[in-house]
Amino acid sequence: MLTIYGMTDSGNCYKPRLLMALTGRPFRHVEVSFLDGGTATPAFRAKNPNGKVPLLELDDGRLLPESNAILLYLGEGTPFVPDDPFERALMASWMFFEQYSHEPYVAVRRSLIVYAAMRREASADRLAETFEQGNRALGVMETRLAASPFLAGAAPSLADICLYAYTHVAAEGGFDLSLYPAVGGWLERLAGLPGYRPLQWRPAD
Amino acid sequence: MLTIYGMTDSGNCYKPRLLMALTGRPFRHVEVSFLDGGTATPAFRAKNPNGKVPLLELDDGRLLPESNAILLYLGEGTPFVPDDPFERALMASWMFFEQYSHEPYVAVRRSLIVYAAMRREASADRLAETFEQGNRALGVMETRLAASPFLAGAAPSLADICLYAYTHVAAEGGFDLSLYPAVGGWLERLAGLPGYRPLQWRPAD
Repeated sequence: MLTIYGMTDSGNCYKPRLLMALTGRPFRHVEVSFLDGGTATPAFRAKNPNGKVPLLELDDGRLLPESNAILLYLGEGTPFVPDDPFERALMASWMFFEQYSHEPYVAVRRSLIVYAAMRREASADRLAETFEQGNRALGVMETRLAASPFLAGAAPSLADICLYAYTHVAAEGGFDLSLYPAVGGWLERLAGLPGYRPLQWRPAD
Repeated sequence: MLTIYGMTDSGNCYKPRLLMALTGRPFRHVEVSFLDGGTATPAFRAKNPNGKVPLLELDDGRLLPESNAILLYLGEGTPFVPDDPFERALMASWMFFEQYSHEPYVAVRRSLIVYAAMRREASADRLAETFEQGNRALGVMETRLAASPFLAGAAPSLADICLYAYTHVAAEGGFDLSLYPAVGGWLERLAGLPGYRPLQWRPAD
C-alpha cells in the first residue's frame, strides 16, 4: 500500500490525502511534522534531503517529494486530470502559481499565527507582507473563478485540490474570504464533491 | 507562430527559450520586463492577471503563464519528458522544488544584487536569508547530482532546463559554485547539449 508521510494540520500534506479520499484509494498515513523536529531527523533526511513533508513512498521503496508532484503522480488516470493538453497545462500553471504566489503568503501567514513555534518569526513586517501578497493571490483566483467554475476549466482538477488546501483555511491566517465571493462559491463546490474529507482527516489506522 | 512574452535577463523567461532552442522550434520573443513597469500595464495584466513573465501566447490567442507550466506544455512529445510515469513525476518534483526552495533564494539574491531597482529591498537580513536558503537548495541538488547524471534520471529532462536557468548564474548572486562539484559537472553537461543557447539569447527578429 502507498505510504504518505505528512503532518495532519498541513495544507500541503492534506492535498494528497484529499485526492486519495476523492478517488477512494487506500493509503497509509505516517505522521511527520516540522513542529517536533520530525522532518529534521537523519532518518527522514535520508528519505527526503530537502526535509519537507508530504513525501510519498511506493510499495517498492521509491520516494517522491513535493505535494504537487505527488498530486500529478497519483492523479494520472483519474477524472482530476483533463484530457486536453492545454487544460492540463493550465492545471499545472495554477499549481506552480500556488507554490510561488499563494502558499508563501496565505499558508505562511496562517502558520505564523497558528503555530506557537513560528511566532518568533511573526514580525510586523512579515505579517504585513504576507497579508498584502496573500490578498494579491486571492484576487488573482477571484478573477479566474468569476469566469470559470474551476481553475483549469469546467471540471474540478488537481489544481483545485491544490489551491483548496490553504485557501479554505485562509481565515485562520487573518484573510477575509467574504471579499472574494467567486472563491467562496468555488470552495463550496469543492467541499460538496463525493468522497470529500476535511483537513484533519486521516485514514483509520 | 508561438509568442513568448519575457524579459531577456530573467532565468524564468530563459527556461522556455532554452527548450525552444534545444528542440529547434521557432517562436516570437516580445520583451516585457518588470524593471520598466512592462508587467504592470493594464494591457499586460489583461493577458496575465498575476503580472508575471514569461507568458506563452498560442496562435489562437490562448494564454499560459508560469515558466514551468510553459515547459510542461511545450515539452510534451519531446525527448525532454521521460516516458516512465515515475520519472515524469520526479521531473515535476524538481520543478516544484525550483519554484519553492530554489528560485526565491538563488534567483532573488541575484536580482537584489544585479538590478539597481531592487537594491532598496536588499537588506542585510534579506541577503543573509537568501544566502543561507540558496546554499541549502544547492546542497539538495548536489546530493542528487552526485548520484544521478540528471535530476530525473539518466537523460536530461525539463527539470534540468528549469534548474539550469538560475543555477548557472548563481555566482552573480554571490554563491560559490565550486562548493558543489556535482552541480558543476551537471551544468557543463547541459551547456554541451546540441542546440544550447546562453541566457541572453533571443531569436533574430
